[in-house]
Amino acid sequence: MGKIEEMIKRIGPVDEKLMEEAQGRLDNLTKPQGSLGRLEELAKKVVGITGKKNPSLRNKVIFTMVGDHGVVEEGVSAFPQEVTPQMVYNFIKGGAGINVLARHIGARVIVVDMGVKSDIRYPPRNCETISGTESRKSFGFLGEKSDIRNFKVKKIGYGTKNMAKRSAMTREEAIKSIEAGIEVFEEEYKKGIDILGLGDMGIGNTTPSSAVTAVITGRPIEEVTGRGTGVNDGIFENKIKVIEKAIKLNTPNPKDPIDVLAKVGGFEIGGLAGSFLAAAAHKVPVVTDGFIVTTGALIAFGLEPKIKDYIFASHSSVEVGHKAILERMGLQPLLDLDMRLGEGTGACLGISLIEAGVKILTEMATFGEAEVSEALK
Amino acid sequence: MGKIEEMIKRIGPVDEKLMEEAQGRLDNLTKPQGSLGRLEELAKKVVGITGKKNPSLRNKVIFTMVGDHGVVEEGVSAFPQEVTPQMVYNFIKGGAGINVLARHIGARVIVVDMGVKSDIRYPPRNCETISGTESRKSFGFLGEKSDIRNFKVKKIGYGTKNMAKRSAMTREEAIKSIEAGIEVFEEEYKKGIDILGLGDMGIGNTTPSSAVTAVITGRPIEEVTGRGTGVNDGIFENKIKVIEKAIKLNTPNPKDPIDVLAKVGGFEIGGLAGSFLAAAAHKVPVVTDGFIVTTGALIAFGLEPKIKDYIFASHSSVEVGHKAILERMGLQPLLDLDMRLGEGTGACLGISLIEAGVKILTEMATFGEAEVSEALK
Repeated sequence: MGKIEEMIKRIGPVDEKLMEEAQGRLDNLTKPQGSLGRLEELAKKVVGITGKKNPSLRNKVIFTMVGDHGVVEEGVSAFPQEVTPQMVYNFIKGGAGINVLARHIGARVIVVDMGVKSDIRYPPRNCETISGTESRKSFGFLGEKSDIRNFKVKKIGYGTKNMAKRSAMTREEAIKSIEAGIEVFEEEYKKGIDILGLGDMGIGNTTPSSAVTAVITGRPIEEVTGRGTGVNDGIFENKIKVIEKAIKLNTPNPKDPIDVLAKVGGFEIGGLAGSFLAAAAHKVPVVTDGFIVTTGALIAFGLEPKIKDYIFASHSSVEVGHKAILERMGLQPLLDLDMRLGEGTGACLGISLIEAGVKILTEMATFGEAEVSEALK
Repeated sequence: MGKIEEMIKRIGPVDEKLMEEAQGRLDNLTKPQGSLGRLEELAKKVVGITGKKNPSLRNKVIFTMVGDHGVVEEGVSAFPQEVTPQMVYNFIKGGAGINVLARHIGARVIVVDMGVKSDIRYPPRNCETISGTESRKSFGFLGEKSDIRNFKVKKIGYGTKNMAKRSAMTREEAIKSIEAGIEVFEEEYKKGIDILGLGDMGIGNTTPSSAVTAVITGRPIEEVTGRGTGVNDGIFENKIKVIEKAIKLNTPNPKDPIDVLAKVGGFEIGGLAGSFLAAAAHKVPVVTDGFIVTTGALIAFGLEPKIKDYIFASHSSVEVGHKAILERMGLQPLLDLDMRLGEGTGACLGISLIEAGVKILTEMATFGEAEVSEALK
């Protein structure tokens, strides 16, 4: 696993000395010490990660990684699987939640097909549901079209296998999915990434996320399984049984994150793990979103625990498993707005706060510069 | 009190019917119902306030209202009083926290001298502390300079009186301060205000805020008094005693908000109350900041309770009295980032979230528009 090892080797400690210097400047800005609370902590962390005294987060980028899941056969989702490619078109056309919030914060969105069950063709036929069985001839493949610059095809497969019946993917596919996440990062890094937000989409993907989280954290399945998007009581109970069955059948090794990813994970979860590793290796701050993205972070954390110093937890998702992972990594979320959409929507809001913190550090006047008297000692 | 009554009369109920329509659209956007949590609630509230189906928050404005407090004689603050005018210069020059965060969200800042102890002159003499006793001749008055467009002089007096010895101001001054806040709003409204954030600055101003909050909410002084900006144990105990003394001496009437403002309030608190009233009267969403601004909201709420439907609580301040007021008005803060600077800094971050919510409502595609299948029933 050359590319993955290479990234892990490059992940060093953050620059503590520079963080102390940043604290010195923060304490000397025209405000009572510490009065901007967590904004100051965010600025300091960005300094430590980037190794830059005066960082700038001009190039904000979101990767929304998409995959399908064989386990939807078991009836774990309220939405039909065709919604996965439909949402990819929505992302490309700019009408989804992530597009709106990314525009709001001035970020560009890169949509990545990590393993959608059908081929994504553009433009989709009018008023028609796209399915993988249609003739490829009638449409150009997006992956081959150079004019769709914000869409990348890194397809590891046409959806994972049903983990309730067999391994979701092979070990080789798991490694490939992580490597693809590294590749996406390195391709986009050439165009400039000062901060990265990660997002996900894929009908059924809270099910593998709960499975991965239960295995790696050792918590009971019930404690890390939520209702996904709009799941009722019946589907919810079934979901827990399906996860139990998948773990029992595949016996993933909790100490081997790649084994866990292969047996009960997903292609987009692997891609996300790879992007976390690559961001840290390149000293780029990386921002989590909800449960699925944070599951990707958990895989990366299993491969290299130092990664947590490069990660910002944007928000606290309604999905219960999310909290379990953040606790395991020792990360405290910035926002709690009852969100559970995914796509990178929470990451966008988090990035805006991190940028606010960085601007406080780099744009505010010190007591000396502004000729303001300091507190009485 | 003609101007105040006029505003109160104009404050009507929010448009519930349009809010229901907005909920209909929110539920039909390409996301599981309710999955953007509080962002959706924010959008709906803006629709109800503005009476617009497709609101836009392009013109974002912050009023940072500044005043001095005679009670600082009693040693209730860690900073010397000269910091008040020094910070006004810092605001004008763009080096303060509020300037940085307002630029971050694309808002303009209007700094209002509601009652600074000295005259604000521009430019200040180099490397010199400005004090009110210096000759006026050596500087132009800012209020007379037309090139300082973001600074307004609405001085009700040169600081309040020491409330531990007498009434902080007369009833006439209290009314004038509220009217000045209305005027500031109406002047700026002509240039365009789609959403208003309020901020404060004034050495010692957490002391009158705690006094006003204790009187109006009926809570014990200890429960609504915090450490302001960098106050130690000794100053803190003294601060509580000073507030006790001021309330005992002046006996403000809890049912008469103007009496409370006059006896134990501040000029900037009155100005803030006036801007809250005017914003609601003009159907403009208005965003609180920390403890002092929220105290201004409490005065306005005492005059017209409907105002709470026009207010968004941006964040939860470290100052304990803040929570007591939000509970009284039934408002839930959006952020909790351990901030306690004031100036409007929390309001800025809140406005960015509210705008995000509004853009979700107005820019996201519906299931129909994007040809995405809805959840299985």
